[in-house]
Amino acid sequence: MADKLKIVRKLDDFGVDYIEAGNPGSNPKDLEFFERVKTMELANAKLVAFGSTRRAGISHEQDANLAALLGTDTAAVAIFGKSWDFHVTEVINTTLDENLRMIYDSVSYMKSKGKEVIFDAEHFFDGYKANPKYAVRALEAAAEAGADWLVLCDTNGGAFPSEIGEIVKEMVSRFAPLSIGIHCHNDGGMAVANSIVAVEQGAVQVQGTINGYGERCGNANLCTIIPNLQLKYGLSCIPEENMTGLASMSRYISELANMAPNERDPYVGNCAFAHKGGMHIDAILKNPASFEHISPQTVGNERRILMSEVAGRSTVLTKIQKVAPWITKTSPETQKIIDELKRLEHEGYQFEGAESSFELLIRRALGKDSKFFDVKDFRVLCEEHWQGDYSASAIIKVKVNGVEEVTAAEGDGPVNALDRALRKALEFFYPQLKKMRLTDYKVRVLDTSKATAAKVRVHIESTDGEKVWGTVGVSTNIIEASWNALIDSIEYFLYNEMGM
Amino acid sequence: MADKLKIVRKLDDFGVDYIEAGNPGSNPKDLEFFERVKTMELANAKLVAFGSTRRAGISHEQDANLAALLGTDTAAVAIFGKSWDFHVTEVINTTLDENLRMIYDSVSYMKSKGKEVIFDAEHFFDGYKANPKYAVRALEAAAEAGADWLVLCDTNGGAFPSEIGEIVKEMVSRFAPLSIGIHCHNDGGMAVANSIVAVEQGAVQVQGTINGYGERCGNANLCTIIPNLQLKYGLSCIPEENMTGLASMSRYISELANMAPNERDPYVGNCAFAHKGGMHIDAILKNPASFEHISPQTVGNERRILMSEVAGRSTVLTKIQKVAPWITKTSPETQKIIDELKRLEHEGYQFEGAESSFELLIRRALGKDSKFFDVKDFRVLCEEHWQGDYSASAIIKVKVNGVEEVTAAEGDGPVNALDRALRKALEFFYPQLKKMRLTDYKVRVLDTSKATAAKVRVHIESTDGEKVWGTVGVSTNIIEASWNALIDSIEYFLYNEMGM
Repeated sequence: MADKLKIVRKLDDFGVDYIEAGNPGSNPKDLEFFERVKTMELANAKLVAFGSTRRAGISHEQDANLAALLGTDTAAVAIFGKSWDFHVTEVINTTLDENLRMIYDSVSYMKSKGKEVIFDAEHFFDGYKANPKYAVRALEAAAEAGADWLVLCDTNGGAFPSEIGEIVKEMVSRFAPLSIGIHCHNDGGMAVANSIVAVEQGAVQVQGTINGYGERCGNANLCTIIPNLQLKYGLSCIPEENMTGLASMSRYISELANMAPNERDPYVGNCAFAHKGGMHIDAILKNPASFEHISPQTVGNERRILMSEVAGRSTVLTKIQKVAPWITKTSPETQKIIDELKRLEHEGYQFEGAESSFELLIRRALGKDSKFFDVKDFRVLCEEHWQGDYSASAIIKVKVNGVEEVTAAEGDGPVNALDRALRKALEFFYPQLKKMRLTDYKVRVLDTSKATAAKVRVHIESTDGEKVWGTVGVSTNIIEASWNALIDSIEYFLYNEMGM
Repeated sequence: MADKLKIVRKLDDFGVDYIEAGNPGSNPKDLEFFERVKTMELANAKLVAFGSTRRAGISHEQDANLAALLGTDTAAVAIFGKSWDFHVTEVINTTLDENLRMIYDSVSYMKSKGKEVIFDAEHFFDGYKANPKYAVRALEAAAEAGADWLVLCDTNGGAFPSEIGEIVKEMVSRFAPLSIGIHCHNDGGMAVANSIVAVEQGAVQVQGTINGYGERCGNANLCTIIPNLQLKYGLSCIPEENMTGLASMSRYISELANMAPNERDPYVGNCAFAHKGGMHIDAILKNPASFEHISPQTVGNERRILMSEVAGRSTVLTKIQKVAPWITKTSPETQKIIDELKRLEHEGYQFEGAESSFELLIRRALGKDSKFFDVKDFRVLCEEHWQGDYSASAIIKVKVNGVEEVTAAEGDGPVNALDRALRKALEFFYPQLKKMRLTDYKVRVLDTSKATAAKVRVHIESTDGEKVWGTVGVSTNIIEASWNALIDSIEYFLYNEMGM
């Protein structure tokens, strides 16, 4: 509930026009949410409550869902109704005529109460392909009842851009000057493109979700659609000055939703502007437009030059200069760092996605590192007792400014036990560590043919709630590999916290 | 390298037409790969080696990249060249005329050596928008030199379906009867749609990758494009009977790439046909077409109803009958095993590639298992002493036929130590274990967002020199997960050795 209120605040700040925030008739939590949100002042967005047309065979005044919608006090409501004949007769088991009356009654009832009404025509495209006449009649019923918006939904998500374009064009001209909207799902992998094509053909409202969250393959991803429309077509979706907040808004919502961010997401993903391979990096350094469709700063994202064996000297230099701007291509330190990079890559390190470990490597090579803590000793014990009772625990001794601290912790496995013990020990000295946490842990076995004696590479991603950083560790011992990545992650955080 | 050969085999079996398998001129590993793949017989696919046009200012015969391409012996080569004037002058620093000669020379040289030549026009759409005349001249140079294919690339991935459609249409008619292809990136979230639109306008080759793997936001995802084209447009991409292998092919490639499968991926994702919420499930049970754009079986995926499922009973039965041929579809044992399978899958087990663990599960459920040994106790200790001296050791107690044996071993990490100690103990009773060894060890972190407390799935492959078998274990504790897979592996070996 608190999260949902935070999301509303965030979306309003970001500048979206409508926030469809729940179905008060089907969900008691949503009902409570609409109560609590009443006191919230919104600067940009209109809140929308969502619900279906009245049930068949009763009057709109008897319908509990419609009553719940009215109870929310939102200025706008979204009413969804059937526009595919098959759904009317086979799923909700009523007649085609009664369904049209359900639409008409529900919309006109909401209008009579002064609401702005968005009519969502569920399965509109499938319905139109099966029975165009009936699908259009469903829209007409809503239009005649005074709906302010007709939104065409590809509920099953299987439509193609060419169909969407053609059908939207037809509806826009048929219902002009009424405003047409589009609502796509991603089952064919084309929700974004389908939404864009609809806008090209005259749709003026796009329904979607942040990061494309939604059932099955998701809804249309607004974090892709908004920059596509605004940066490339010049259509205003949000205030221009907010566009640089796109990437952090996306990460904020994924934090609250407790979903790992998709690093390959267009515009906002961690890899969206990541470059590797000598040729590409060379070109990017000459001119970013060579391999970037937009500038990452525009959406608050960052260019990442990925380190790898094929990365050239100039790539490494760019990274070094972030820490020590006076170093040049021919400084002896540059060669030293490149040699160290090569040695580590040969050992199985990979600094792609672990730029923080690489930055620490540079600091250490330049002698610009600080000792925040010393680990004097650790011990991890895993036991199985009499078939099936497993345990993992860690004992650790750290030393900070001459003071030693010994702690122990149990965990879900050896690495988790070690992680917990280390934090417990260090939080004593660095309480700010409480706001840092690990968000991702990956293990890759290198040269799998050596089986359990093979080297592993551990990649850890951490966050302080705002920034995200990656670190890496390699060893034949998974405990050691995890340990190295863990230490880097904490050190990197401390450097940043202390503004070093 | 072994993985890459496996991928080629898999793609050929699946029935794709071309496999672009590497750049021999830029990567010594790819060179070695093309050597080793020479002896592989392919039933469906043509292998393609990939490389750039000759460098500026030298003759094609002096060019090392072109020489490497010829050295691969593949029937087809893909030559990529610049078609955006800005890239010619600003990135590769040559003249517009020289670039056209580079294209012409490289393509005609390959043709003179009998190769089928695919010309990839890099940045074609950006180039066409900036300087249409020059972009077309680049294609003309390739066409005049005898290229078999002209492939239009949206290298920066920012183009829109409407632009793609218009430009492809123009090129198809201009260069008819030459075959036009399309190569899209996903930076605008529209790589799939852009590829589809290109096909609608006459493109007859789609370049993409399995699961959309690729730099930045990825390439066009063939696991979405193939079913979109074949199931909905009736265009044949792969043999019809292979379509039901799509989901498992996608998972196989993600296993080899050690990338977590994206559960929201269209068609093949674990959530692609997952339904929840009373209304949706009710509709799905009445008629699946109500909320599914295709039937999940068509692509070898499964419907998931998040209350009680109807799983592939006949698939499971086939496996059961291998152990107990008298069991039928309606035997109570069948239900028991299906329930156990579901429970384990829910816990994160995956038996693809670990059929031996599944066979043991069946044996245990049927009471047809033998106790070859009992593990009374084990203990694994990992220590770090005074910065940098790591050790891992295991102590283990086993009991066979009433005789106890205690052993200890050190290892390269905790799992290796445990593996060694267990074998040492068991070889005392089962000397034949000496001929068995582990050949592969893989770790996949499930739900990476739980970081070091996340569950891991360990997959082990073993061999006795003749047969190869796979086993699996899952736990939040990597030691326990590895242990379970290890025990299964040894038990399976002993069953086979004893002809049981």
